[in-house]
Amino acid sequence: MNIAILFGGSSFEHEISIVSAITMKKVLKKSQLTYIFVDANRECYLVDTDKINSKLFSSGAYKKGKKLTLKKGGFFTEGMLGSKQLGFDVLLNLIHGRDGEDGKVASLMEFFDIPYISPRLEASALSYNKLYTKYLAESLGIKTVAYEHLRKNGERKISMGYPVIIKPVRLGSSIGVSIVKNESELDYALDVAFEFDSDVIVEPFLEGVKEYNQAGCLTDTWELSIVEEPYKEEFLDFEKKYMDFARDAQVLAADISDEMKEKIRESFKIIYDPLFRGSIIRCDFFVHEGEVLLNEINPIPGSMANYLFEDFEGMLGRLAKHLPKEPEIKVDYQYIHSIQQAKGKA
Amino acid sequence: MNIAILFGGSSFEHEISIVSAITMKKVLKKSQLTYIFVDANRECYLVDTDKINSKLFSSGAYKKGKKLTLKKGGFFTEGMLGSKQLGFDVLLNLIHGRDGEDGKVASLMEFFDIPYISPRLEASALSYNKLYTKYLAESLGIKTVAYEHLRKNGERKISMGYPVIIKPVRLGSSIGVSIVKNESELDYALDVAFEFDSDVIVEPFLEGVKEYNQAGCLTDTWELSIVEEPYKEEFLDFEKKYMDFARDAQVLAADISDEMKEKIRESFKIIYDPLFRGSIIRCDFFVHEGEVLLNEINPIPGSMANYLFEDFEGMLGRLAKHLPKEPEIKVDYQYIHSIQQAKGKA
Repeated sequence: MNIAILFGGSSFEHEISIVSAITMKKVLKKSQLTYIFVDANRECYLVDTDKINSKLFSSGAYKKGKKLTLKKGGFFTEGMLGSKQLGFDVLLNLIHGRDGEDGKVASLMEFFDIPYISPRLEASALSYNKLYTKYLAESLGIKTVAYEHLRKNGERKISMGYPVIIKPVRLGSSIGVSIVKNESELDYALDVAFEFDSDVIVEPFLEGVKEYNQAGCLTDTWELSIVEEPYKEEFLDFEKKYMDFARDAQVLAADISDEMKEKIRESFKIIYDPLFRGSIIRCDFFVHEGEVLLNEINPIPGSMANYLFEDFEGMLGRLAKHLPKEPEIKVDYQYIHSIQQAKGKA
Repeated sequence: MNIAILFGGSSFEHEISIVSAITMKKVLKKSQLTYIFVDANRECYLVDTDKINSKLFSSGAYKKGKKLTLKKGGFFTEGMLGSKQLGFDVLLNLIHGRDGEDGKVASLMEFFDIPYISPRLEASALSYNKLYTKYLAESLGIKTVAYEHLRKNGERKISMGYPVIIKPVRLGSSIGVSIVKNESELDYALDVAFEFDSDVIVEPFLEGVKEYNQAGCLTDTWELSIVEEPYKEEFLDFEKKYMDFARDAQVLAADISDEMKEKIRESFKIIYDPLFRGSIIRCDFFVHEGEVLLNEINPIPGSMANYLFEDFEGMLGRLAKHLPKEPEIKVDYQYIHSIQQAKGKA
């Protein structure tokens, strides 16, 4: 199978997308890979799979590669002899953060009719925003951590007790996140968060909470990863989380009761189906006082959470055969014809 | 000002978008118009403003026009002498329904860096879906009509009393909507609705409810339309609503108390700002037992609700000067540099 890897993007996570993309070369050994880089200026370039390395991007040398145009059916190179379509079987959206996770890539792929592995438009728009993720979870009967929503130009008052955790609603990888231990620290933490986003959510900082990650997708059957208990300090900052994106070795399953594991898996399935069909996502859950709470949905997890699966490459192939399609809409001009007829008679 | 009108799209409302677009020629008399047609196959064509009429599309004759490519900065025609950018000051998204209202057009415009009047990605994804509109309203403290949510493959049981109204969550223009007077009619109405969508909401059919429409936008100040009381039968079906899209004459203001009008305007402002900045939307409210309830948000209203404004054309110009911009993200390759240095030292 020839898999196009779309990476980069106009995102705070542009660089970790590059790390994720390079990691795929180690993981997808049987497939042919076509690397498509979206630079910070949102121009698309074809990158030679043999030559891909982080310096190619930081030095700007990627610009010597072929520039790509998006047109009906795919990506094209333009030359003296006309345009030539890039051949691949499926595109893997590996742009973390803005562009990749907010629904832009999904929109482009739908509009230009390119088969792609990624959350679709609605799934992206909802899961990219931590506040909307709360609404989504609520509508599905999935419990989440309690929260309050603050706006950039609104009142800076919270009613829950300290310590709390402040999160910009639209960013991943812990960017702009702070733990606030008492009221005197609140203002500064909000200043930091509002640097990045117009909205933040405030959650209680739960002591002694266990975190478990569940990744997976639906092909012709459920393909769920092992349940992982990630390495955890007070919280992972950007630099530490960063290393996650380069992971390619499998990890050990979490030491967790079968009952709790089953609860996590059932929650994952309820969240995933049907909204996230066509994608591989990772849901991060908290287990607090015996309850499973959704912490967040990672619509494009670091290095696609490949290290949680036994047969990641095979799964990609199976998923490529089970991509959802937008319903077909036939335009028959029936209404315009009837107006024309009515006018003709008048 | 040169305004590009984007219309058509892969949408059940493709044809009414054509009617809306043609109406703009009568409404925008002082502006130069550049018509960009997205056909049902999602190919873009330049349409001659002098020759635009409904038959051009129903006959397929538009295909004789120039085909357009989307690239950084705008739409381009491709010729023997290279590609040439289409010149315009701002694009008006006039695609009703899918593509235009679901966030695809917003995504394309952001990605290709084209100034545009339209709800942005998040605003589109939320308002396109009647269920998510409920969540949004709830989070803003705006009341809506009570509802229940049914899924295509879920249980077909409702707990509210009849009569009820069944609405597919993702379609406008009353497509797939039915009033159900008693339980025996429920199954058929759901069959119809699920033909169009995987999710429906069920609302009580409110007797004696008054409907009021408020359109507007935020330029350097609030520009709100008159409050209109639309013509109303039991409910407007597709054919009747259709006529709305060709409206270009101003209507009379609703006969409504100043207090109620103020409530409607305040609700509109809370919904609009900041999520809908950059767009002209119409919110349809119910007044029921003295309470203002949001019925729906029309992110791309028929013929842009021009008939509700005194100076629609001037407002477009002012709005074009107050379009929101995505925050700039600078990619400095700081993390990649630090990895390279760490590797160099190792």
